[in-house]
Amino acid sequence: MNTLSRSEAWQADRDHFVHPYTDFTTFHDTGSQVISHGDAMFVTDEQGQSYLDGIAGLWCVNLGHGRTEIAQAMADQAMRLGYYNTFGHSTNVPAANLARQLAERAPGGLNHVFFTTGGSTANDTAVRLAHFYFNRMGKPSKKKILSRNNGYHGSTYFASALTGIHGIHYGFDRISQDIVHHLSAANCYRRPDGMDEAQFCDFLIDEARHRIEQLGADNIAAFIAEPVMGAGGVLVAPAGYHRRMAEVCKDNDMLYIADEVVTGFGRLGHWFASENHFGHVPDILITAKGLSSGYCPIGAAIFSEKIYEGISKPQGPGGTLSHGFTYSGHPVACAAALKSIELYEAEDVFTNVRDTGPYMQDRLQGLLRHEVVGDVRGDHLMAGIELVADREAKRNFPPDLAAAEVVFRRAREHGVIVRPVGDTIILSPPLIISREQVDTLIDGLDQAIEDVSGQLLSRAGT
Amino acid sequence: MNTLSRSEAWQADRDHFVHPYTDFTTFHDTGSQVISHGDAMFVTDEQGQSYLDGIAGLWCVNLGHGRTEIAQAMADQAMRLGYYNTFGHSTNVPAANLARQLAERAPGGLNHVFFTTGGSTANDTAVRLAHFYFNRMGKPSKKKILSRNNGYHGSTYFASALTGIHGIHYGFDRISQDIVHHLSAANCYRRPDGMDEAQFCDFLIDEARHRIEQLGADNIAAFIAEPVMGAGGVLVAPAGYHRRMAEVCKDNDMLYIADEVVTGFGRLGHWFASENHFGHVPDILITAKGLSSGYCPIGAAIFSEKIYEGISKPQGPGGTLSHGFTYSGHPVACAAALKSIELYEAEDVFTNVRDTGPYMQDRLQGLLRHEVVGDVRGDHLMAGIELVADREAKRNFPPDLAAAEVVFRRAREHGVIVRPVGDTIILSPPLIISREQVDTLIDGLDQAIEDVSGQLLSRAGT
Repeated sequence: MNTLSRSEAWQADRDHFVHPYTDFTTFHDTGSQVISHGDAMFVTDEQGQSYLDGIAGLWCVNLGHGRTEIAQAMADQAMRLGYYNTFGHSTNVPAANLARQLAERAPGGLNHVFFTTGGSTANDTAVRLAHFYFNRMGKPSKKKILSRNNGYHGSTYFASALTGIHGIHYGFDRISQDIVHHLSAANCYRRPDGMDEAQFCDFLIDEARHRIEQLGADNIAAFIAEPVMGAGGVLVAPAGYHRRMAEVCKDNDMLYIADEVVTGFGRLGHWFASENHFGHVPDILITAKGLSSGYCPIGAAIFSEKIYEGISKPQGPGGTLSHGFTYSGHPVACAAALKSIELYEAEDVFTNVRDTGPYMQDRLQGLLRHEVVGDVRGDHLMAGIELVADREAKRNFPPDLAAAEVVFRRAREHGVIVRPVGDTIILSPPLIISREQVDTLIDGLDQAIEDVSGQLLSRAGT
Repeated sequence: MNTLSRSEAWQADRDHFVHPYTDFTTFHDTGSQVISHGDAMFVTDEQGQSYLDGIAGLWCVNLGHGRTEIAQAMADQAMRLGYYNTFGHSTNVPAANLARQLAERAPGGLNHVFFTTGGSTANDTAVRLAHFYFNRMGKPSKKKILSRNNGYHGSTYFASALTGIHGIHYGFDRISQDIVHHLSAANCYRRPDGMDEAQFCDFLIDEARHRIEQLGADNIAAFIAEPVMGAGGVLVAPAGYHRRMAEVCKDNDMLYIADEVVTGFGRLGHWFASENHFGHVPDILITAKGLSSGYCPIGAAIFSEKIYEGISKPQGPGGTLSHGFTYSGHPVACAAALKSIELYEAEDVFTNVRDTGPYMQDRLQGLLRHEVVGDVRGDHLMAGIELVADREAKRNFPPDLAAAEVVFRRAREHGVIVRPVGDTIILSPPLIISREQVDTLIDGLDQAIEDVSGQLLSRAGT
């Protein structure tokens, strides 16, 4: 039963698997590329073609593919205790241990961990518990959440409402638009003309303060933000932005929710970016992806002492914090995360990031030699390359050209996987990447852009 | 780092792990019971005490604990390919294979699988895609969802809104109350006086039709229901109810979403209960829990051809079905599910359920000898025992007595784990249970009820 030939897998996939983010104009004809195995920086498809994985699966396989240590840790735990619930007064050793390990690594007083099944459910949980917290504090009107355009916060119905990449709501409904309000993206590339970065930062902070005044601080529970926007195009905020937004939150009795699903676990060279990289301690920190290096579904919301004290005031005998998932604190998922943490440390992975990260950012600047590259940006091992049909006007290509998708396909022919999102090409390789592999990745992308630039510009009529 | 002593685990848990459904009146003092390992029908805590697991972890470890076959399948897959995304036109062998296996086992034309990370995200996905579907069909006003009192559908913010166990919303907010409407529970025990079961069924169907008329069928997308209500107290609907509700849905162009998170994968003796047990084919079938026998977080929403045709109409070049999770189709989770399916078949597990299930229901009737047992109900290997202070008046115990919790604690002293939910004690053992183990489970529960009955009745002043 588990021995389908590869082309049978292709067929089964096409006939029965409804993929996330499927484009059905082509899916019925072309189906999927079947990725069959992985080894360190590389993945291989069923045709035997290997590719340098420039996206770590999807921002998550931070320790690289085929890690036998993690596989063994999961199997050992599954044999010892594959599952038992953590509802009420019941726990398991890996979950208890991981909660402590996360508390030790999270900044400031972020000592209390609610486990979920991934980033979406962790963001969703953060808002449910922020609302619960303010109810317990006697401030039931504090309900609104400020999010940002281009922010990506997941795909539960509520997490999708938080998400500010408005194009991906096409065809879908939005719920809770009375709760969620979007501020401007901290998009330095597309900031208003004539502003320098410092002025743009002032502009964003002013906008936030103004919006809070309009909505009323008494009605606002929290601000949610990725330290560096991920799926929204790898947008790096102006210097000082997050620290100042944290002050805005403090001034208005709002919680700062840092969505570190992408930036956590080393992508910017630290366990978490908020404090070490951006100089502030959020009230709630969200993690997933790198937490288990992608080997098992898990996420977590890590709460401050202040919030824990609020939510853990006894409600009365039998009154419970009625929230959580069957798989909250799943022992096998927690075992995968514990082993990942051990490997991050034993192999000094973040030191590698602090070397190869700046090296990658530096090498990426070379892509600006292409007329179609409007902007290159990022931080350590996450980067965005935005394509434009007209660099002067910062005008993107027409959507039907799917310019980034064209580059992605061409890059794959050169043996490297990048990720097209809108008109931006995203890089987020495993954190074990070497300088030589950075070269391979960027050379492949550079060649792909070179190959298709002329055709794209001519089709765009530029 | 993974070698915390057991009492350190207890301490780490108490200091850092915010549990689902925690009662903080006692948590800070007592902390958690640390379950350290499991073997077939038994789990063992860090004191070395073993218990017959009468709840299969949480309705999910259907194949029992310590299954080396599943552990090995997960490790093999994690070494081969621990993760790669399934976004767009990318897949992996276990996910493709599992999608086909689910389509083959799901009833009727339910051939298309959307993978999620558990039951909550699968129900949440079902509604997002039901809305998307009706938008694509040119019926954007069809948005409301009929759910039921006592229904449990999960803990994302939207899934919690679907949930009709109103007590667990205490302290929390509810979103989307313009979308979600609750009908009466199909609670035969607490049906209106003077109605027989058939009349109660008529009453429920009439109520549904009437509510649809009030809200307008043009405004309603779907009805969601568990075949047998689980966390709401193991409520078995009157004969014919689901088939007739499916007709009501058809008459009103509404989708029927069957939440088979608990009833799927054998608990009622079949892969799924909707068709084989209740005689109808839903439009969307939700599964999780037993799907991987709990060994790895995974859930799925399985869609009809009709819905797939609707949602897969091309939106135009580059237009995508913009929904999904990083861990949708996770290869390790899918490998755990594939191995579980293989074991369900190889060991003929459902045949065992069709023997031990009726045997357990039969033996449970003996509990009615206790004055505090108001009702015993269930179907095959799921059962609810409702405690009452006054059998005649069907009056439950005062909440501060936590009667079911008292029975649960006492049963644990007799070596069996049951689950208290409100005033109901729930049983949902692994499906590999033998008749002898059914005897052990029910004898332990019987003894526990015997032990505490007098004290409960006297404290209730009955």
